[in-house]
Amino acid sequence: MTEIDYKSEVQVFFRDLQERICAALEAEDGGAFFEKQEWQREGGGGGRTMVLQDGAVIEKGGVNFSAVEGELPDKIAKALGVQSNHFFASGVSIVLHPHNPWVPIIHMNVRYFETSIDGKVDQQWFGGGIDLTPHYIVPEQARFFHQQLKNSCDAFGAELYPEFKKWADDYFYIQHRKETRGIGGIFFDRLKSTAQFTMLDRFDFVKAVGNTFAGTYTKLMSLNKNKAYTAEEKNWQYIRRGRYVEFNLVYDKGTKFGLDTNGRIESILMSLPKMAAWPYDPQFEADSKEKQTQNLLVKGVDWLQ
Amino acid sequence: MTEIDYKSEVQVFFRDLQERICAALEAEDGGAFFEKQEWQREGGGGGRTMVLQDGAVIEKGGVNFSAVEGELPDKIAKALGVQSNHFFASGVSIVLHPHNPWVPIIHMNVRYFETSIDGKVDQQWFGGGIDLTPHYIVPEQARFFHQQLKNSCDAFGAELYPEFKKWADDYFYIQHRKETRGIGGIFFDRLKSTAQFTMLDRFDFVKAVGNTFAGTYTKLMSLNKNKAYTAEEKNWQYIRRGRYVEFNLVYDKGTKFGLDTNGRIESILMSLPKMAAWPYDPQFEADSKEKQTQNLLVKGVDWLQ
Repeated sequence: MTEIDYKSEVQVFFRDLQERICAALEAEDGGAFFEKQEWQREGGGGGRTMVLQDGAVIEKGGVNFSAVEGELPDKIAKALGVQSNHFFASGVSIVLHPHNPWVPIIHMNVRYFETSIDGKVDQQWFGGGIDLTPHYIVPEQARFFHQQLKNSCDAFGAELYPEFKKWADDYFYIQHRKETRGIGGIFFDRLKSTAQFTMLDRFDFVKAVGNTFAGTYTKLMSLNKNKAYTAEEKNWQYIRRGRYVEFNLVYDKGTKFGLDTNGRIESILMSLPKMAAWPYDPQFEADSKEKQTQNLLVKGVDWLQ
Repeated sequence: MTEIDYKSEVQVFFRDLQERICAALEAEDGGAFFEKQEWQREGGGGGRTMVLQDGAVIEKGGVNFSAVEGELPDKIAKALGVQSNHFFASGVSIVLHPHNPWVPIIHMNVRYFETSIDGKVDQQWFGGGIDLTPHYIVPEQARFFHQQLKNSCDAFGAELYPEFKKWADDYFYIQHRKETRGIGGIFFDRLKSTAQFTMLDRFDFVKAVGNTFAGTYTKLMSLNKNKAYTAEEKNWQYIRRGRYVEFNLVYDKGTKFGLDTNGRIESILMSLPKMAAWPYDPQFEADSKEKQTQNLLVKGVDWLQ
């Protein structure tokens, strides 16, 4: 094989992935369509933001594609430990906030990152992850979700799911709350070529992760979208969304990267819910389903049991 | 005069200030009282959180007193550029979110910070500020607010208001939105003893700032609390609150300090509104009052004109 131009390949795949996912979500939602917005980034590159608001199931959801490049800010180069000062980054980022508190929030990101010096590739890697934030944890659905991720991973090696599952537990953690964002999923970063995996293997893996998203989430939508819910359950959803906002604005590296590199703000912050709440110090009974969910927001739970 | 024990003095003043402010706010609100919660910090010290929710005017408001001390995390010592690894910090922090979009959000913080080595004071300084975030800017009220702050400053030197006003413009700035949080106010930090000002002068200044708060805000409550408002104005308020959340979680140094030093989370995050919104990319007509307010959210406006 001749050399693969990853900058070109990943853009084509990611754009197509974005379209396929939007189509699947629209079909399951049935109430609204994604609105498309193409944008250019001043420093180089751009993207295509797809946002669906006020659907039948999804209240606010974004499926973003971007491919940006330009000067790598010193601050970020230092944080990444790279010498090069030019970067290219492309990926698909998704966050979906449903109306119904029984439908979980989901997030996915798959991305390719490359740095170069004088036009020559210096570093290149893939990263990504999928994690689920049910407002109320339903064990059999948590099991289904993690099994789907495990299936995607297992095709590339049995060691991947346990490693990336732990990585998600550590990454999607709200340190100041001492709680995980949800039930985790998988997270991975800086997947470079190794003795075991070529860059092409890494790309194939990221494709598999990306391709498992739509079927996994539309299933969870379909299972829960018609459940009745109470005002109390809606209030709890607003609180859980507040925690989601806290994670994204305080800890999320993708958000920070976007804000630090002058990304398109509305695209970066499409991850924030349409409405969130911070009532002061809300309390829940020990045997309430809110407390039961909160008790499960810890690292190291084996959801496949 | 014998030496002044600032650790002791500031606590007594700040606790009293907290009580006086709560009493004044309760009187103007007329619909609810502050609930008190005393708390201890694991590493040393503690505080008293006063929160009023669902009042007649204030939807969620916190007036926090704290006096904490302990080991200074290396990360923070480095950021502060101090050698000492023990700190004491005391102050009053206030954020008030009203129901009515015509009543502005207000924030005040006054604080004393001290570091020590082997029990001997190393560094000591005062800091603080007051800033106003009207959902809709009313020029004569902006003028009143800034005039009140200028009056407090002028008693200590005509140069203070311009300097601290500019500092507030720079501090209360949402970099990624390229907009100020509101109409600013004053901000100051690391006010140490100098040839011109003793520590006692600095303390007197901080007292003057603290003492101007209640009268200034209750006036703004009283001017606006009975104004009628529409659903559109309420929606705009939720959006402005979303920006407030962004500032506090992404940029605010006090919030970061609290989260990094294991402060009491519900007290630190009492600054967040009960409800906030992030609709995707909201658009407003060029001549709308929302756009007119947004156009004024820039640095360097002379509100006293």
